[in-house]
Amino acid sequence: MSNRPDPSAVPPKVVPVAVSARHVHLSRADCDRLFGAGHELRPARDISQPGQWAAEETVNLVGPKGRIDGVRIIGPLRKESQVEISRTDEFKLGIDAPIRMSGELDGTPGIVVEGQLGPIPLDHGVIQAQRHIHMSPVEAVSFGVANHEEVQVRVTDHAGLRATIFDDVVVRVSPDYELEMHLDTDEANACDWQPGGVGHVIRKTLRRGPPNS
Amino acid sequence: MSNRPDPSAVPPKVVPVAVSARHVHLSRADCDRLFGAGHELRPARDISQPGQWAAEETVNLVGPKGRIDGVRIIGPLRKESQVEISRTDEFKLGIDAPIRMSGELDGTPGIVVEGQLGPIPLDHGVIQAQRHIHMSPVEAVSFGVANHEEVQVRVTDHAGLRATIFDDVVVRVSPDYELEMHLDTDEANACDWQPGGVGHVIRKTLRRGPPNS
Repeated sequence: MSNRPDPSAVPPKVVPVAVSARHVHLSRADCDRLFGAGHELRPARDISQPGQWAAEETVNLVGPKGRIDGVRIIGPLRKESQVEISRTDEFKLGIDAPIRMSGELDGTPGIVVEGQLGPIPLDHGVIQAQRHIHMSPVEAVSFGVANHEEVQVRVTDHAGLRATIFDDVVVRVSPDYELEMHLDTDEANACDWQPGGVGHVIRKTLRRGPPNS
Repeated sequence: MSNRPDPSAVPPKVVPVAVSARHVHLSRADCDRLFGAGHELRPARDISQPGQWAAEETVNLVGPKGRIDGVRIIGPLRKESQVEISRTDEFKLGIDAPIRMSGELDGTPGIVVEGQLGPIPLDHGVIQAQRHIHMSPVEAVSFGVANHEEVQVRVTDHAGLRATIFDDVVVRVSPDYELEMHLDTDEANACDWQPGGVGHVIRKTLRRGPPNS
């Protein structure tokens, strides 16, 4: 981790790495249009971030070039609907969505979403999620990073054949967050991610040489 | 690129990055079984490495969990058949193939391949290609790298949101090679590769700090 004289003085900068498969967040209005007025999504299982869960209900995504069925919905409802897909999904659907942080939906493309009541068009809200790390304020202090800071994270695969340093990883700090880095499925496959995978956070200001030295 | 005193003395360590989509190499025997005895594959278009081409003929891959149709064959014929797929493809097919350099097929899983004459089982030969760079001996001297050396390559995307440093990139040197780094489709999507993408080669021995400093 470091070649400083006293390694025990350096906090371990290890973060669990989780994979965020394609999913959808729904607004109240869109949930109504897809599943009926006032429909309450049924939580099927908790996911890692506290208070969030995967719903029993799923939707289908329909793009100009193809469709993907059985896409999970993450609850609870949000202010705005949001569809998070990978670049691989984009090629399949025929949609070119930008890389964005969650909730930054200005100028994003739309998509047709099919629910129990049939298809509805969303006029925007499709993104590829930018790599990010969730952490609590205490963890941010321990890591020596600030909210919205971008760091590098080195992820080493078990076989030692696809170690990858992800740059442009956004730190997101909130008391509601559990320490976890989120990659999408393309990124996870690129580094041969396996369950239990971890990353080592590299603060850019601590790096000794320039990036391409 | 470097903080040596005289930057003009340092050759630029830039390499074109190409994406290797799933494809198949066939042996004479397997080509016979798929397309008929003595069948000559018809070159459809040259690919970047000299002497290699994509054939008009395609095959379908059939795994325990799914199938992928219309997979291109890369000619000319080889001593052994080889199927190169991505991790995404593996999930679709239900096959867990190791990451290997081309031609290193010991202990690899098999797959069913469908050609014009119907399906044939291959008892081994499925791999995920390890990241690598093709280069000529002259280019190897210019880069200061040796055949089989592993380097890092930094690929920066246009939007500056998914810069990625690929580690474990194997250098392959031959007079027959054109300078080019090959990523698979998952790796290309992970770094938001676009046509014309380039990488900056980082020799590990030149790196100043440890990887996670």
